[in-house]
Order: sequence, then structure tokens, then C-alpha cells
Amino acid sequence: METDSPFLLAAVSLLSALQMGYLARRVGLSRITHKVLPPSVTGPPEFERTFRAHQNCVECYPVFLVTLWTCGLFFSEVTAAAGGLLYIIARQIYVNGYVKSTKKRLLGFYLTLAVFVTLSLLGLSGILHGILHKYFHIHL
Amino acid sequence: METDSPFLLAAVSLLSALQMGYLARRVGLSRITHKVLPPSVTGPPEFERTFRAHQNCVECYPVFLVTLWTCGLFFSEVTAAAGGLLYIIARQIYVNGYVKSTKKRLLGFYLTLAVFVTLSLLGLSGILHGILHKYFHIHL
Amino acid sequence: METDSPFLLAAVSLLSALQMGYLARRVGLSRITHKVLPPSVTGPPEFERTFRAHQNCVECYPVFLVTLWTCGLFFSEVTAAAGGLLYIIARQIYVNGYVKSTKKRLLGFYLTLAVFVTLSLLGLSGILHGILHKYFHIHL
Repeated sequence: METDSPFLLAAVSLLSALQMGYLARRVGLSRITHKVLPPSVTGPPEFERTFRAHQNCVECYPVFLVTLWTCGLFFSEVTAAAGGLLYIIARQIYVNGYVKSTKKRLLGFYLTLAVFVTLSLLGLSGILHGILHKYFHIHL
Repeated sequence: METDSPFLLAAVSLLSALQMGYLARRVGLSRITHKVLPPSVTGPPEFERTFRAHQNCVECYPVFLVTLWTCGLFFSEVTAAAGGLLYIIARQIYVNGYVKSTKKRLLGFYLTLAVFVTLSLLGLSGILHGILHKYFHIHL
Repeated sequence: METDSPFLLAAVSLLSALQMGYLARRVGLSRITHKVLPPSVTGPPEFERTFRAHQNCVECYPVFLVTLWTCGLFFSEVTAAAGGLLYIIARQIYVNGYVKSTKKRLLGFYLTLAVFVTLSLLGLSGILHGILHKYFHIHL
């Protein structure tokens, strides 16, 4: 481990992993509340919304990790870490909203999308810079 | 960021993340076409095939990232990046086929499998080389 | 690739990716045994338990990769790799148990949780050490 290791990216990744654990736990608690025994994934609407909210986070999570680390390693670690924290908050808003009603998932969804677009574009700019430099000897 | 950073692996990762977003969007559009409101995931066969096609990509995605980066860091970045592009194409063929019929998912499925096997074996050879070198001082 | 590359983390990651492929294959075989054609995911209880067992592993997998690499890069590679092997065994116990009965998934589940907590805490200690060192010039 070196001093220039990406500690902030690792810290945000670990925090987001903790959030994934917390969201899985919420599905488990919702199972108990609504008496939905595994392996069943259907039940009262509130349970199904909680379940789908978590599934959506499962779908997003690897995409998040790719954009976080791409932006962090190839553009700016601090910017990426800040974006990562915003993502965690966005997901929390998404799940809290979705559990209440299908419509209330939208705010968190658009916030998530905004973070994805931002991290991706910044990461892409860093990668293009690097590719131009490394393979075409062009310095912008 | 250094000149020898794995820009190509990062670029392919970002492209595959974009594809995941596109596939999620297709499920959303299929929801609208077939009038399947979230959180429901059942409906007309075409919607269910679109949904499962995306889910299968969600299942494959972290496995893809592991094999891409393992092959890229421990065997050859260019080979891995080429394999990664092939994976993205294979997934596109898979989803396009699956949306039409369950049988038509098979070509893309076998292509995906071929990429996984290739990236894994090349990555494994690099890792074994490295382990023999580092821990047993054997140079092949 | 350098001599100090994290070969062990890569090897464990590749092994866990192989396990994910194996578990997906088990769902496919269970589909054949119980005559559940894709895209359907409902059927006899044993099929549904096999399906959910795999889904749970899909949910856990990116979280595992984050904790494995965090612990491995920021605390100790050998410890993380050992934890990673334990995770793979825990998931095997989980799936084998879950396929038999819903209750029998619990042992593997708690083992998985123990690995997650251990890897996370060790990774966190390494990250905090690094952050204190890098940003606050405090050496513990």
C-alpha cells in the first residue's frame, strides 16, 4: 500500500457495500412484517415495492462501481468520491420513496441517473485524455 | 494517473456500463409498451423475456468485470479489451434474440460463454505465471 | 504486471467468478429437472429455492468483491484471500442448504455474513490508517 493509494474511493466503495447490506436487511424485515416466506418474492404491494427497490439497487451497483472508479482513477479521486456519496444518498431517497409508492421512486431515480451521467462523462474525458496521450502522443 | 494506466480496460468497462444502462432502459420501454407497471415483473411473454434477458445480463456483469480485468492486468490488456468488446456484442445478440423468442437467446448465450472461458483461461495463465514467479521463484 | 501484483486476490476473484458460473448452471439444470422453461422463474418449491439461492449470490457478489479487494489492498492480501476462500465455501454451504429447505440456508448465510463483517472491518482499519497518514500526517 502506497501513500497515493485511492483511500477515498475505497472508503466510498465500502460505505456503498454497507448500504447494500442494509437494503438487503430491509427486504428481510419487510418479509417478516408482511409474512412473506423465502423463496417467495410476491406478496402485499409494500413488500413487492421494497423487494423491487432492492433489486434495482442490485442492478445499479456494479455500474456504480465502474463509474466511481473510472472517474476516480482517470479524472479526480475527490470528485468521484463526492459523486459516490451523492449516489449513496440518491439510492437512499430512491428506496425510501419506492417503499411508500411507485411514483415516489422517481426523485431518487433521476438523482441516481444524474450521478451516473456525471461520473461517466468525467471518467470518459480522463480516459480519452489518457488514450490520446499514450497511443497518439497528443497532449491536450 | 500514469501513462501505463489500463485505459483500454477502463474504456471497455465504461462502455459495458453504458450498455447495462441501455438494457435497463429497454425494460422500462417494454413496461410502457406492454402496460406492466412497477413493481410487477410479470406480464405478456415478450415483456417477461425482455425482463429476464436484462436480469441475465445483471447476473453476468460482475463475472464479466472480473474476467476482463484479470485477463487485462495479468495477461494482455489489448486481448482483454478485444474480448470485452466481443462480450458487449454477444450480450446485444443475446438480448435482441431473447426478446424475439426464448430459443433465439442461445447464439448470444454461447458467444458470451466463449468470451468468459477465453478471458478466464488467459487470466488464469497470467496469474499462475505470476504466482510461480513471486512465491516459488520459478520463471517459465 | 509487477512482482507485487495482487495475484492471490485475482486468483480468488477468478475462482469466485467460476463459482457464479457453476451456480447459474445449477439453476439451468434445475429448470430441466423441474420442466421450468425460461423466462419463467416460478415452479416447484425446489426449483424456486435453487433460483433464489442463486439470486442471493448474485446480490452478494459485488459486495464480496468490494470487501475482498478493500481488505486485500489496504490491510493484508493473504488474509483477504483466505477470507475469500471462506466466502466461496460459505456460499456453497448456503446454496446446498437452501436447495434442500429454506431453513437449511441459514448456516451458510451466517458464515457469509461473518466473512463480510471480517473483511469489511479489516479493510476499514486499513483505509482509516491510510487516510490518517495521507491527509492528516498521523502515523499510528
